[in-house]
Amino acid sequence: MHYPEPISKLIDSFMKLPGIGPKTAVRLAFFVLTMKEDTVLDFAKALVNAKRNLTYCSTCGHITDQDPCYICQDTRRDRSVVCVVQDPKDVIAMEKMKEYQGLYHVLHGAISPMDGIGPEDINVPALLKRLQEEEVIEEVILATNPNIEGEATAMYISRLLKPTGIRVTRIAHGLPVGGDLEYADEVTLSKALEGRRDV
Amino acid sequence: MHYPEPISKLIDSFMKLPGIGPKTAVRLAFFVLTMKEDTVLDFAKALVNAKRNLTYCSTCGHITDQDPCYICQDTRRDRSVVCVVQDPKDVIAMEKMKEYQGLYHVLHGAISPMDGIGPEDINVPALLKRLQEEEVIEEVILATNPNIEGEATAMYISRLLKPTGIRVTRIAHGLPVGGDLEYADEVTLSKALEGRRDV
Repeated sequence: MHYPEPISKLIDSFMKLPGIGPKTAVRLAFFVLTMKEDTVLDFAKALVNAKRNLTYCSTCGHITDQDPCYICQDTRRDRSVVCVVQDPKDVIAMEKMKEYQGLYHVLHGAISPMDGIGPEDINVPALLKRLQEEEVIEEVILATNPNIEGEATAMYISRLLKPTGIRVTRIAHGLPVGGDLEYADEVTLSKALEGRRDV
Repeated sequence: MHYPEPISKLIDSFMKLPGIGPKTAVRLAFFVLTMKEDTVLDFAKALVNAKRNLTYCSTCGHITDQDPCYICQDTRRDRSVVCVVQDPKDVIAMEKMKEYQGLYHVLHGAISPMDGIGPEDINVPALLKRLQEEEVIEEVILATNPNIEGEATAMYISRLLKPTGIRVTRIAHGLPVGGDLEYADEVTLSKALEGRRDV
């Protein structure tokens, strides 16, 4: 035990965060000692408040401090479209775009048989229930990540929704804007070619 | 404003830490939401306790939760030697070695005319006072960092202490153990040669 107890406890706490190893934890803990007391108190309060006051929206699964969340509550939004994403952070990314006016459904994960995660372990049953209850929904946009788990999840949901007659779409694969054809991988390039459109 | 308020406040708090940018702050804040409430409460308490209960030892300047610190209080230590370091973290590094049995003096910085930091801005006056008051001190080991500021500080203190007749030593420069001669820079190599000893 080389550190006085208060600081070694703080170091331990920092080390529980992802991507923070022993050296960074020590650096951060010592930095906290140089911060103003008010700033540290605000930090501590922010931690507790975030944990205590945030829950998941009972409708869409997005993180929120009020239930239903501000997106589900917003009457100006288009209630006929639901965008299915894996993570609350994906909702933020979509919202930053400021173009999508529909609602969301957050799965909190993706189907991954390798990790033993099936459709029941993510927010899929709630999506089905929602589609049955809210009859205004006309389109489900599958915006899961463009990787194996995300594709599998999109495929699974699209098959599941086929009998309902609701339109199911998948966001486009292709070259990222600002990207370089030369450095694109074959799969992306093949998807970009496959998804070509008349201009 | 894309995030619910409690999480955006937490993100702001994380961003005040060194080396944590907006993306990492978001990742850490979202991770906090997945942590157990007890763990988050412990984290918050650790932050406040570290800030409130830790002070600098009035004798040596090391961080401590009791004054004088556990090193200054320890009667088994050799009170005739004082090792001068720049930072409390340097004390920890020395203590990890488990070989040094003397006391410390933490400067909390180094002389750096470029940044307007003079001898009065670091803990040098307290060192002088301490050497006058504690008559048992026979040796001062200068263990400031081996860079320009650290060398300048060591040089300054050694000149300052010359009239007192106390033995002043500087930790050795040379090749780090496990290092490679081939990749050593010229200055280090020149110092290593200069500091050669009979075997």
